[in-house]
Amino acid sequence: MKVGLLGFGKTGKAVASILLQSDEVKLQWVIRKSHNLEHRSVPEFLGITSTEPGFIYSAEEFTAHELLNKLPVDVIIDFSSEEGIEYYGEEARKQKISVVSAISSYPSTKIEFLKYLSEKTRVIWSPNITIGINFLIIAAKILKKIAPYSDIEIVEEHFKGKPEVSGTAKKIAKALDLQEEAIKTIRAGGIIGVHEILFGFPYQTVRLKHESITREAFGNGVLFAARHICDKEIGLYSMEDLLMPYFNMGSDVS
Amino acid sequence: MKVGLLGFGKTGKAVASILLQSDEVKLQWVIRKSHNLEHRSVPEFLGITSTEPGFIYSAEEFTAHELLNKLPVDVIIDFSSEEGIEYYGEEARKQKISVVSAISSYPSTKIEFLKYLSEKTRVIWSPNITIGINFLIIAAKILKKIAPYSDIEIVEEHFKGKPEVSGTAKKIAKALDLQEEAIKTIRAGGIIGVHEILFGFPYQTVRLKHESITREAFGNGVLFAARHICDKEIGLYSMEDLLMPYFNMGSDVS
Amino acid sequence: MKVGLLGFGKTGKAVASILLQSDEVKLQWVIRKSHNLEHRSVPEFLGITSTEPGFIYSAEEFTAHELLNKLPVDVIIDFSSEEGIEYYGEEARKQKISVVSAISSYPSTKIEFLKYLSEKTRVIWSPNITIGINFLIIAAKILKKIAPYSDIEIVEEHFKGKPEVSGTAKKIAKALDLQEEAIKTIRAGGIIGVHEILFGFPYQTVRLKHESITREAFGNGVLFAARHICDKEIGLYSMEDLLMPYFNMGSDVS
Amino acid sequence: MKVGLLGFGKTGKAVASILLQSDEVKLQWVIRKSHNLEHRSVPEFLGITSTEPGFIYSAEEFTAHELLNKLPVDVIIDFSSEEGIEYYGEEARKQKISVVSAISSYPSTKIEFLKYLSEKTRVIWSPNITIGINFLIIAAKILKKIAPYSDIEIVEEHFKGKPEVSGTAKKIAKALDLQEEAIKTIRAGGIIGVHEILFGFPYQTVRLKHESITREAFGNGVLFAARHICDKEIGLYSMEDLLMPYFNMGSDVS
Repeated sequence: MKVGLLGFGKTGKAVASILLQSDEVKLQWVIRKSHNLEHRSVPEFLGITSTEPGFIYSAEEFTAHELLNKLPVDVIIDFSSEEGIEYYGEEARKQKISVVSAISSYPSTKIEFLKYLSEKTRVIWSPNITIGINFLIIAAKILKKIAPYSDIEIVEEHFKGKPEVSGTAKKIAKALDLQEEAIKTIRAGGIIGVHEILFGFPYQTVRLKHESITREAFGNGVLFAARHICDKEIGLYSMEDLLMPYFNMGSDVS
Repeated sequence: MKVGLLGFGKTGKAVASILLQSDEVKLQWVIRKSHNLEHRSVPEFLGITSTEPGFIYSAEEFTAHELLNKLPVDVIIDFSSEEGIEYYGEEARKQKISVVSAISSYPSTKIEFLKYLSEKTRVIWSPNITIGINFLIIAAKILKKIAPYSDIEIVEEHFKGKPEVSGTAKKIAKALDLQEEAIKTIRAGGIIGVHEILFGFPYQTVRLKHESITREAFGNGVLFAARHICDKEIGLYSMEDLLMPYFNMGSDVS
Repeated sequence: MKVGLLGFGKTGKAVASILLQSDEVKLQWVIRKSHNLEHRSVPEFLGITSTEPGFIYSAEEFTAHELLNKLPVDVIIDFSSEEGIEYYGEEARKQKISVVSAISSYPSTKIEFLKYLSEKTRVIWSPNITIGINFLIIAAKILKKIAPYSDIEIVEEHFKGKPEVSGTAKKIAKALDLQEEAIKTIRAGGIIGVHEILFGFPYQTVRLKHESITREAFGNGVLFAARHICDKEIGLYSMEDLLMPYFNMGSDVS
Repeated sequence: MKVGLLGFGKTGKAVASILLQSDEVKLQWVIRKSHNLEHRSVPEFLGITSTEPGFIYSAEEFTAHELLNKLPVDVIIDFSSEEGIEYYGEEARKQKISVVSAISSYPSTKIEFLKYLSEKTRVIWSPNITIGINFLIIAAKILKKIAPYSDIEIVEEHFKGKPEVSGTAKKIAKALDLQEEAIKTIRAGGIIGVHEILFGFPYQTVRLKHESITREAFGNGVLFAARHICDKEIGLYSMEDLLMPYFNMGSDVS
């Protein structure tokens, strides 16, 4: 599977390193806004031995049409910004190239545009594209259904400088129909990211806890998404949609 | 729903207190081996205000036939010992009374007997009849299927005097196809019971953790079992079987 | 060492059970406000085998003068309410009987009264008389001094119904010169009591965590206090004062 | 304070980045065994803006005598290997330059050599030179003294590939007079490093937990050591020795 990557900030770099080290995908190119590192090889830049092309281009050098004809891919992975989609959207729709977007949030017009793309190709959008967090959200929804009387609290811990409540914690709260007050926010030192969903029962507790070690976790989520989107119909999906079939294989796991 | 309880040790008492405080069931009687507390009222003994009969009888005073005709029940709840089933088994089968057994382990002959009962009535057998533990086991099986490459370790903590590895931890290990070496055993002070299933991914961890506060947690598990068995066909079930439908309602929770 | 106990609520009962099971002290009596259980034997009531007298009296039956002459003690342990001290204070001062008070909070006039007592006898007052919490507070103060640049957050978890922030968490915050906003409050199910002091450093975290299992923890704190007060001069002490000498034995522990 | 660094592996690089970003020390040079990166500037290599010299030299280019005369330092920081000390030892002794060694373990002859150096200059040797771990060890020793009857267990978690029990966990066990069986070892995914010392009391638990986020934590430990060694007499010290005075300031913290 050939893939291209938009965005080469801290997270983009971490994701690129995972893509390069995976046998499942071949990184064809990285597109970024700036001219920084233009024409550098990603494997060489990251110090990873790889025969994959993976050159860095500026969005100003090529249009998406030129790029995708010169260096075609099966999946476009977007870790840029909400504008990224403007660059490649129409061309992905036309060429039916799958899109995996990890952009934190889109304005409603962009969400409409995602839906428009998904009429003709497969689109996955997940603001926190880790397996761990998305698994926890589904599991928590199920436990809430089993025990609607339990008290649920969300604790999220991040580094001191992180402003506001984490978007992931808000997403968890929304998924569980909780007020934002149910989120307790810890800010201390250099903590990368911890999310805990606590279920308090009268005589027991259940804690579902996710801890991020490094940003490379997003890379493994992308691989999971890229691997699973192939079997899907054309349409718009979330990571939860891709994980859900594993929850429905009841007879296999019981 | 009328229920009767076998066993009145520490856990039996805790379960009885939950049954008495629930509006869903009416505790008709408690049967125990010894003559201790014979003819005492359970509500009075436990200091709980209740109009439910709940008298304590010795197994020597009545046969199950006499007892179940005098004080009929819909569900027999067994927290006694592996012998308990000999007392009431045949009569439960004959009268099609549901059985909820929380006995830790049965020899194979007794398991055969359970199957024989389940030809004619509903039988649930679960050695750790809490919602929390059984939920965690299913969730962990699913996560293992999603990420078979992850490393799984089980940590269990109990009070200093508890001998050997906990039966629940062994059950978790078996459910996840892990060697018993994957279980790390902590014995310290008066810890009631903690079980953690840790999934190590390359760049993230997921921890599924259950903490028992008191034995009353078993009472809530029994209520869940009693409530859900009514809708089931005749047959032999585990707690996981009762929880599984909640995992299969994919489209509802996503 | 002969001891008497004021208060026989849930915590008072738990403390009494620890006192009865300890070889270090002999429980002479329990005084309570109400006439409930009057003249019952505590060992018999709690089902503990003991030859200690430990009878329950109402505060209306005897004055402290009569009681302490009839059944003299070395230490009075107070788990009643802020009024308890009015019953025995003057007599304890006169007879130089040590006082261990675990009352949550006193108004300033009562604190003055404690100081007045401590002119003639030894008085310990600690609102959370566990070894664990008081150890953590001193350790946290030291770590703050070592690393004043670290970010400190306090997390406290209790059962759903507990109103407001826990007094212990407030005490920790005050001891560390933190605003009350540094306390994150979790209320869920039947959690007995968890306090965590989190130190966030740029590249590491230190967590000091205390978990209460049952109220009997207060009984062990009382035993510690009773044991250590004997060596002290007349005066007013906190649990921290009693623990501090263990922190000053530098050369022994390094 | 001028400092020089031996070793430029993963940890050496992380430590160098902290030294460069601190106002307290000036990194004069890095010495490494190999000729890799020779004459490169550390700030430039690590992408850190700094006016500190910090050039990388091979140990073959200069003797320590030549190096320390050309680019004198107040403190030599050693993250190389047990051989590193042979390079600079005699010269540090002669010039009374302080030494901070973070080497995991030395054979007994090298420990003798450290003692020989410490006759004339200040030497700190600490295999895990973080503030967090060393603080926890002292705190744990104190708690053990307060409550010798408590049950202590050590849990350490590291990445899957890490062989054997962690050296830090062994050090903790030794400091607390525990058998190595008290250490429970978790190996899963990419966990950087977690150490927990659990004290089990009859009715409460105390958990002292350290979590490493990145190797830069060692850099902060080195800064702490460099800052505190100035006030010390000539001699051989551990990190615990440097932390101990903070524990002895009883009256200040109570």
